[in-house]
Amino acid sequence: MAVYTQVDDEELIAFLATYDLGPLLSCKGIAEGVENSNYYLHTGAGSFILTLYEKRVAEADLPFFLNLMEHLSARGVTCPLPVKNRAGLALGRLAGRPAVIVTFLDGYSIHHPETAHCAALGATLAQLHLAGADFAQRRRNALSVEGWRPLFSTCASRAEEVATGLRALVDAELDHLERNWPRDLPSGVIHADLFPDNVFFLGERISGLIDFYFACTDAYAYDLAICLNAWCFDAELRYQPDKGAALLDAYRRL
Amino acid sequence: MAVYTQVDDEELIAFLATYDLGPLLSCKGIAEGVENSNYYLHTGAGSFILTLYEKRVAEADLPFFLNLMEHLSARGVTCPLPVKNRAGLALGRLAGRPAVIVTFLDGYSIHHPETAHCAALGATLAQLHLAGADFAQRRRNALSVEGWRPLFSTCASRAEEVATGLRALVDAELDHLERNWPRDLPSGVIHADLFPDNVFFLGERISGLIDFYFACTDAYAYDLAICLNAWCFDAELRYQPDKGAALLDAYRRL
Repeated sequence: MAVYTQVDDEELIAFLATYDLGPLLSCKGIAEGVENSNYYLHTGAGSFILTLYEKRVAEADLPFFLNLMEHLSARGVTCPLPVKNRAGLALGRLAGRPAVIVTFLDGYSIHHPETAHCAALGATLAQLHLAGADFAQRRRNALSVEGWRPLFSTCASRAEEVATGLRALVDAELDHLERNWPRDLPSGVIHADLFPDNVFFLGERISGLIDFYFACTDAYAYDLAICLNAWCFDAELRYQPDKGAALLDAYRRL
Repeated sequence: MAVYTQVDDEELIAFLATYDLGPLLSCKGIAEGVENSNYYLHTGAGSFILTLYEKRVAEADLPFFLNLMEHLSARGVTCPLPVKNRAGLALGRLAGRPAVIVTFLDGYSIHHPETAHCAALGATLAQLHLAGADFAQRRRNALSVEGWRPLFSTCASRAEEVATGLRALVDAELDHLERNWPRDLPSGVIHADLFPDNVFFLGERISGLIDFYFACTDAYAYDLAICLNAWCFDAELRYQPDKGAALLDAYRRL
């Protein structure tokens, strides 16, 4: 949670002059997001989010993410919409970083999701999967089963510091998953990071989805699995069948 | 630069229900300020800043700061205005911390002040000193000469790591200042922290002053000295006479 790249007022005013957004009125670094630097931006045209992409996001992937947000937004999935500059481009450069301005979404994250929130999530997830069905670009999921062993190898030597036997347990699970991973599930565009932080609510209604920077082409079940794990367990890590059923029922209904 | 205290959506909605500010629409932690946790808050009534006071701010001092902001705002000094809840109180409690909601000020900090900015600062500083003249409360300046030796004693043993001879130099300067500090200068309410971060501009016009949490009763010259030091030197630490003159001329004119 940090702003990694500071933006100078003169650079920002020059950057903003390439857009039709009126004068700079305010710009404040937001302490959210672990991948990029985000600013709340107020201009003559309203409220926006300014994002500077840090090194962990591959610049070559940015058109996929930005085109996807535009595609989904046009199909009624409320998400940040990239704003184009006078040259018609969404992707610019500011303070030495790739930078975009997107529309500001009202809403807030729910810290303790109830059944109604899980149902709303299921419906929105189905809407997202349907809206992405005719998106032409593809992006490999770098965090699917092929990515897990390389990831584990970077920290396996310290696994025993967390719990005795953890290294052998993870190794055995990885063996099992690599042998049995399903390859023929229905797939398409998935969000791949739908944790509560990335879903905005106004009351029990979802007001928007944010942070599409893990979005990729993979099994729809991958998104469902993340949502079931991140939204349908209680603080003692017990599965909540009511929440899971509400999520899946709403997902299936669309 | 951080948000020290996280605010839960349910706690925040309950807190906001004690105000006449309409429903919660958005709340985002701001990566500014080193003393307190600040949030950009959007409600049915508009944009605000929510501040949670961390341990470094003495709770007993908060009425001084909040009453001062109200006093100055009523006299035309643009600064955040504390919003009162339905019980008529500006100071509440949220997430275990003293908390206030203040009005949101447009404007942005200038990273490279020009002469025109220094002139605007001088005029606003005079306006601040005049507007504070009839403020009844007093607060001692904890960072005047009496505070410097205790402060230095916490790090004196490592002074030589910064520069050879630094410890003796600071000791000698402290001796000199303690013997010669002027006690009879005109004094009253001062901001005491008018670094560029705390002055908002829209173009060359000052749109507001923020962060009154060092404000106190002391010599007006203390504020002037901070402004001359923080605004009127170049990147190579050379004094810029034009900027200093612009600041002082504008200050004297009011």
